[in-house]
Amino acid sequence: MKKAMPLVVKMDIFVDLPASQKGSHMSRNLELITEIIDANVESPVTDLETFCAQTAKLLLKKHEYATFSEVKAEADYFFERTYPSGNKGLEPYKLVAEARANNQGTIKKLIGVRAIGMTACPCASEVIKTIGNYEEKDIPPTHNQRNITTLMIEVPGDDKSVDANDLIDLVEQSFSSPTYEILKRKEEGKLVFNAHKNPKFVEDVVRDILSSLLKEYKNLPDDVLVVVRSESEESIHKHNAFAERITTLGELRK
Amino acid sequence: MKKAMPLVVKMDIFVDLPASQKGSHMSRNLELITEIIDANVESPVTDLETFCAQTAKLLLKKHEYATFSEVKAEADYFFERTYPSGNKGLEPYKLVAEARANNQGTIKKLIGVRAIGMTACPCASEVIKTIGNYEEKDIPPTHNQRNITTLMIEVPGDDKSVDANDLIDLVEQSFSSPTYEILKRKEEGKLVFNAHKNPKFVEDVVRDILSSLLKEYKNLPDDVLVVVRSESEESIHKHNAFAERITTLGELRK
Amino acid sequence: MKKAMPLVVKMDIFVDLPASQKGSHMSRNLELITEIIDANVESPVTDLETFCAQTAKLLLKKHEYATFSEVKAEADYFFERTYPSGNKGLEPYKLVAEARANNQGTIKKLIGVRAIGMTACPCASEVIKTIGNYEEKDIPPTHNQRNITTLMIEVPGDDKSVDANDLIDLVEQSFSSPTYEILKRKEEGKLVFNAHKNPKFVEDVVRDILSSLLKEYKNLPDDVLVVVRSESEESIHKHNAFAERITTLGELRK
Amino acid sequence: MKKAMPLVVKMDIFVDLPASQKGSHMSRNLELITEIIDANVESPVTDLETFCAQTAKLLLKKHEYATFSEVKAEADYFFERTYPSGNKGLEPYKLVAEARANNQGTIKKLIGVRAIGMTACPCASEVIKTIGNYEEKDIPPTHNQRNITTLMIEVPGDDKSVDANDLIDLVEQSFSSPTYEILKRKEEGKLVFNAHKNPKFVEDVVRDILSSLLKEYKNLPDDVLVVVRSESEESIHKHNAFAERITTLGELRK
Repeated sequence: MKKAMPLVVKMDIFVDLPASQKGSHMSRNLELITEIIDANVESPVTDLETFCAQTAKLLLKKHEYATFSEVKAEADYFFERTYPSGNKGLEPYKLVAEARANNQGTIKKLIGVRAIGMTACPCASEVIKTIGNYEEKDIPPTHNQRNITTLMIEVPGDDKSVDANDLIDLVEQSFSSPTYEILKRKEEGKLVFNAHKNPKFVEDVVRDILSSLLKEYKNLPDDVLVVVRSESEESIHKHNAFAERITTLGELRK
Repeated sequence: MKKAMPLVVKMDIFVDLPASQKGSHMSRNLELITEIIDANVESPVTDLETFCAQTAKLLLKKHEYATFSEVKAEADYFFERTYPSGNKGLEPYKLVAEARANNQGTIKKLIGVRAIGMTACPCASEVIKTIGNYEEKDIPPTHNQRNITTLMIEVPGDDKSVDANDLIDLVEQSFSSPTYEILKRKEEGKLVFNAHKNPKFVEDVVRDILSSLLKEYKNLPDDVLVVVRSESEESIHKHNAFAERITTLGELRK
Repeated sequence: MKKAMPLVVKMDIFVDLPASQKGSHMSRNLELITEIIDANVESPVTDLETFCAQTAKLLLKKHEYATFSEVKAEADYFFERTYPSGNKGLEPYKLVAEARANNQGTIKKLIGVRAIGMTACPCASEVIKTIGNYEEKDIPPTHNQRNITTLMIEVPGDDKSVDANDLIDLVEQSFSSPTYEILKRKEEGKLVFNAHKNPKFVEDVVRDILSSLLKEYKNLPDDVLVVVRSESEESIHKHNAFAERITTLGELRK
Repeated sequence: MKKAMPLVVKMDIFVDLPASQKGSHMSRNLELITEIIDANVESPVTDLETFCAQTAKLLLKKHEYATFSEVKAEADYFFERTYPSGNKGLEPYKLVAEARANNQGTIKKLIGVRAIGMTACPCASEVIKTIGNYEEKDIPPTHNQRNITTLMIEVPGDDKSVDANDLIDLVEQSFSSPTYEILKRKEEGKLVFNAHKNPKFVEDVVRDILSSLLKEYKNLPDDVLVVVRSESEESIHKHNAFAERITTLGELRK
């Protein structure tokens, strides 16, 4: 059984405006969010994407002139991880969710996570093997850096199979290594060594997430939307490396 | 001979306000900056700290009720570097400058730079040497990351010895390695390999800058203020490592 | 005759990657930008969107495995305005540009500007007229705030009619009032008074820009893409009000 | 009786480093924060400044080579306010706290808040009265804007009189008006009208906060440190207006 966790949520909310309407009644947006929050204090929502979908639906009710609505939410999120030491601790993530509703009754909702990890460069690794006269068995140094990756996936209306915690696992397993807030010297050494055995371009991170999604969510239909964005704060450059794929499960299954 | 280089400068400007004055005449601030800029189009200032000092002095003239003034400036700056390939290219930096004036006629001015480089961790390096069974001669992998370091130094009134370009050199030589926007595969390999031969904590970057300053600026008096701040965007953690020292040359010479 | 103006440009550049290619050769991106910049020092580009289009085209040449490319650029920009005092001064803006190219030889490019102005609220104005017992002729107080608006328009390949400076005029005329860095007391009073005679919702700013575009660019074809985004940092709320329209001139002409 | 409220806290933590020590053992910082947090789950701290003071003290214990430590914390905070409609709702603020400890056993701690409100300009108001031919009794329009103000005050070791909620009240009463997330048309009108009856420069906000502090905290000793910073996002300019005072209660009492 899960217990309720309070989240501080930053939201963007939108409705369209017909040509005949001068401006939208913006106070209604905040009112309805207050209503939803008040209702949730009594009976917490199960997840952030459901909160967004509720909000998107209510927006259309309150703004009777609107034909569609859009809600985006982002929240700090802490998830318990087992450190290499075997101890447990909370690591920081972002939860992200979106919902879009129209006045034909269609609602789309997405849930996602943003996680920070490490990527080690495969390309420099190969070159340094030669430059440094390393033996075949040795793992040579390479540049590595902080990587920030966002994964979002559409959740069909009645689906219960997508859980944000699973998405965090899936993203972290696609880095060269996950990273942790507390690492003693030896654990730090092992983590870095393992990351170097598993070098990844930013493009690899995106590819490996998509490939894991296919295995993990066989039950989800073809039209499910998937968004993956990965950015490495390159340690050897002053600019970042970035890869992105926006696609559907159906497209990936081809 | 140098040629004039236009800078886009972001400024913070302050004057104090006596108890008898309700508010400062803020339009005067922008007016005087326009005057200084107009004058500079005719005859460019030699450097950003002189521009700040001019502004600080004029602020006291325009705000006759003020007893001191403070000016801070920051600008994008591009400086030609020789890449490992032997080609030359412009790399991006920040120029930072400050000046403080009072109505006794004292003006203090500081010039500084902010540069991005790479640090490789000495601690993980040692541990991995053992974990990975590296031979004594081998350089083991370690975590490395983007580091952002700011150095500011006070420039006595008539001094001509402090040049921002020299400060950039000095900061870049204190990283495990400077970084470059263009690196072909082999150059990238060499740079990363060299950085690993020269591992540095964030504390080392600050210490090495201070030690270089002492050698470089033997002529400057003891009361010259020095500010060094270094921040590593740790690739194995989600938080940053930060070191800072604010001191005088006299204190360092002890 | 215009004289060349140096710009500090922040860029995002992308190419797609076929399934068969592990990663993109990222050093090529920076090389080609250096080449373009070097060429431009000799013979400056006429505008930022042409610079983006050149870059997008060259990206496809350098990354022979890519089928499309995308380039986004943003730069600080200063434009001479006549202040209410009659004096002239430079006001700060952002220039934004984008280009997308594919290997069928199609290139799309957009130019745009981001400007800061003031909006005064029409709704509170009406209410306060009653609350404060103002006479019919009087302009009552209302809340007003800083507004940040971005306008981008597609520039067909050989078109010479779209100029960023005109876009700045067009955006500034759609605020309740443009704002200026230097205003003496009386000018400030007049500007604020005029803004209150011309109250605007954030939705009005977007609408008025679109309507001006239609009048100004009668020559441009129907498929020209237009993007307008306006955000008011509401002085009576802690959240912002935001309006956006992404459309084509053809759609607007209906 | 208060109930415990979970906070997501962003922290900066520092210890000094003797010349003899190459680097600080940074993993200890995160370990001790985890320990403190674990202890607090069992028995929540009474306030954020006590949490900072505990952390500062423990830092010195864990880093036996250090002679002083510094801790800064910032957290989103929601506080129930009564809206002009009489309804109640949560408004967003920031809690800020700092503590500094040394190995002589001295600990200083500060608590503070950051609040957003509205300032209406007194200067333009006067001018517009003339320009617009307003009657003596009328409140003329003026420019108003979002203002962000931070107040921090030192809390002597055993003091119980300083409460963050009181500081929020004190800051909000120093704006031309507090602002609210939910305002119906008429309430919005009244709020804006009242703000215009109470115009304030950014300097006035700082002055009025300091003057309220003197009245509110008569019991606190003279050496209590006070920091006030107020920034107005000027609606008639593209730059901000900023005022700051760092002083002691003793200095203010003179």
